[in-house]
Amino acid sequence: MLTLGKIKDAASVLSDTVRKTDLIHAQNLSEHGNIYLKVENLQVTGSFKVRGAAYKIANLSEAEKAKGVIACSAGNHAQGVALASARNNIKSTIFIPATAPISKVEATRKLGAEIKLIDGVYDDAYNACVEYQKQTGSTFVHPFDDEDVIAGQGTIGLEILEQLPDVDAVIVPIGGGGLIAGIAFAIKQVKPSCKVYGVQAQGAGSMYQSFVNKKILELPVVHTFADGTAVKKPGALTFDLCSKYVDDIITVTDDEIASAILALMEKQKLVAEGAGALSVAAAMFNKLPIENLKTVCLISGGNIDVNILSRVINRGLLKSGRLSHLTIELLDKPGQLKEVSAIIADLGANVIRVRHNQGGENTDINDCFLKISMETKNAEHFEQIQKELTRRGYKITSNVQ
Amino acid sequence: MLTLGKIKDAASVLSDTVRKTDLIHAQNLSEHGNIYLKVENLQVTGSFKVRGAAYKIANLSEAEKAKGVIACSAGNHAQGVALASARNNIKSTIFIPATAPISKVEATRKLGAEIKLIDGVYDDAYNACVEYQKQTGSTFVHPFDDEDVIAGQGTIGLEILEQLPDVDAVIVPIGGGGLIAGIAFAIKQVKPSCKVYGVQAQGAGSMYQSFVNKKILELPVVHTFADGTAVKKPGALTFDLCSKYVDDIITVTDDEIASAILALMEKQKLVAEGAGALSVAAAMFNKLPIENLKTVCLISGGNIDVNILSRVINRGLLKSGRLSHLTIELLDKPGQLKEVSAIIADLGANVIRVRHNQGGENTDINDCFLKISMETKNAEHFEQIQKELTRRGYKITSNVQ
Repeated sequence: MLTLGKIKDAASVLSDTVRKTDLIHAQNLSEHGNIYLKVENLQVTGSFKVRGAAYKIANLSEAEKAKGVIACSAGNHAQGVALASARNNIKSTIFIPATAPISKVEATRKLGAEIKLIDGVYDDAYNACVEYQKQTGSTFVHPFDDEDVIAGQGTIGLEILEQLPDVDAVIVPIGGGGLIAGIAFAIKQVKPSCKVYGVQAQGAGSMYQSFVNKKILELPVVHTFADGTAVKKPGALTFDLCSKYVDDIITVTDDEIASAILALMEKQKLVAEGAGALSVAAAMFNKLPIENLKTVCLISGGNIDVNILSRVINRGLLKSGRLSHLTIELLDKPGQLKEVSAIIADLGANVIRVRHNQGGENTDINDCFLKISMETKNAEHFEQIQKELTRRGYKITSNVQ
Repeated sequence: MLTLGKIKDAASVLSDTVRKTDLIHAQNLSEHGNIYLKVENLQVTGSFKVRGAAYKIANLSEAEKAKGVIACSAGNHAQGVALASARNNIKSTIFIPATAPISKVEATRKLGAEIKLIDGVYDDAYNACVEYQKQTGSTFVHPFDDEDVIAGQGTIGLEILEQLPDVDAVIVPIGGGGLIAGIAFAIKQVKPSCKVYGVQAQGAGSMYQSFVNKKILELPVVHTFADGTAVKKPGALTFDLCSKYVDDIITVTDDEIASAILALMEKQKLVAEGAGALSVAAAMFNKLPIENLKTVCLISGGNIDVNILSRVINRGLLKSGRLSHLTIELLDKPGQLKEVSAIIADLGANVIRVRHNQGGENTDINDCFLKISMETKNAEHFEQIQKELTRRGYKITSNVQ
């Protein structure tokens, strides 16, 4: 049975393997709540998952340890199990769908795990993993629905209470529910007045649906940018603990998650993955009653593909009107580039790229296009620039990239 | 005179305004040194600069405080002075060249400073600032060559010694030299055996040149991606302290800095600006004798424009062969896209974008081009894919974007 004593034991066992991550006051992320960030993206392996995996492994018997552990994951759980196994000198075998990003596979391999790449999707890898378990008798480390794993994640709750004793609310991302189950249990045992809220991505709200309907529901399909939380069905244990100890669960959209990732990079200099930014998205977009409350947003992980990060940045800048593109039809005579540049500069925008396109099949031979990318303050600012150019006789043919 | 007592006093005075930033063990950034990161990018305002500014301001007389402070900066110093002034309820006026990025201007304004945007470059803003100082009698806060400012930065040295008492070496970025002067002084007073190394960008090595030649030299021009360190001439005070207390100074290239920024994002989930990543670049590219030493890399700041960050990511991925582009000439008949995809997948690369271009003026009407962007393991992997496609009869017309 899960007890506060077990979570305290986990904290003591984990102190060699796991970092006590910082709690950072982030005054400019939300105009309402008084936000603190618990930065598990700066945990070893880049996510909280190593806590649960390490405590699970520490509790194995010598006979079990000798047979090694196995897991099925393309993500943070894989790296957590790999590192925790290496630290305990036991063998880990991780089953990964062959479609997983190369960077994640390589990161897991480097931590010392044996990798089995399985053709197909997660379910295929999971089936291969179960088969292997039967043959070898090694221990399967469940990513969330396991009491030891939950106790390991719960150590974060104790750290928050120690780092910010007058905390009023904690917001936690939910995938399968292991993280919030452990944290909610720990916090409600010690400080029942502290609210614990859960956040899921709108496209993967299995715990949200189950919580609202008061029974475990399985989603036919999950689809979200926060891939670390794409779980179709909550665990039995985690659902039970959420029902008892979590105050409310809400959802956020993929666009809100992307905005939160960008805000964390720009304002807090932190890289968060989609799942990791759920809590901040909830605070930024006023999804929860945290006005004037000392609120801890848990950033669960930072393992995001940098290619995706680059797209998130561009999309975020475009959406907030801070990166703007214009195509202007110009007569090819001198002085116009200078005049357009002057108009834009006078209105306080920064031109960051200019491209001249000589003619096209639908334009007169004497015409050319001018494509300008510029840094603007916001959407209104961009609007103002377009109006002024139009007023001065320029024909804007496109205002998207 | 700078004394250890003064730096200890600064630490006590600053405890309300400044965060004691975390020291993070980063095992996978270098194969040689045993690297720890002192994360001043997670400092309030996103850089260490607030330490020096806040201590300078705290030491002003009431009469001086009443007249306010002024500074000339487009970057971290501006935000440091603005925040420190706001916390002390005094007025700050910051002179900024009009060419500065909008995001930095807005960030400084939000911290409560009055902004004077001056046409021209830094020198023009500086001249306007000096003129204003004469008229108003307000106090000019120098960005580095000031004993109080240096003492404020030196508090980082004390924190490092407290967080990692058995530290062997500390690597510090250098612009004007205020940061390393304070840290080197503090560390050498308490633990003379600990090495203190400085790093500058190759295109802005004013302190490096002065240190090597044992006299203050002024560079005719500075140009680096690490814009926070673009200082033509070291300070008199900072040069003197570096000469006495710094063990060595080396330089790194802009490409090395960009690689360090990418590594910090991917492996440590931290956003660093160019100046902030200098120390990590020095460790990653084996510029210093830190083999097996417990080495602290100071990350001085994280205020990098996200547009630039996006370009750094792409450049870094291309350079390391992890993002690759191919243009293939195809006959427009069925099955070829499938075959090309299969060849690439069999060799373990992930296709992330495909574009079909129907014909062009130099191609036969029946031909078309296939542009593929894919995630690859490294340059050799990409080479292998190109060879296999060629062997199978495909004509590669370009292997760049």
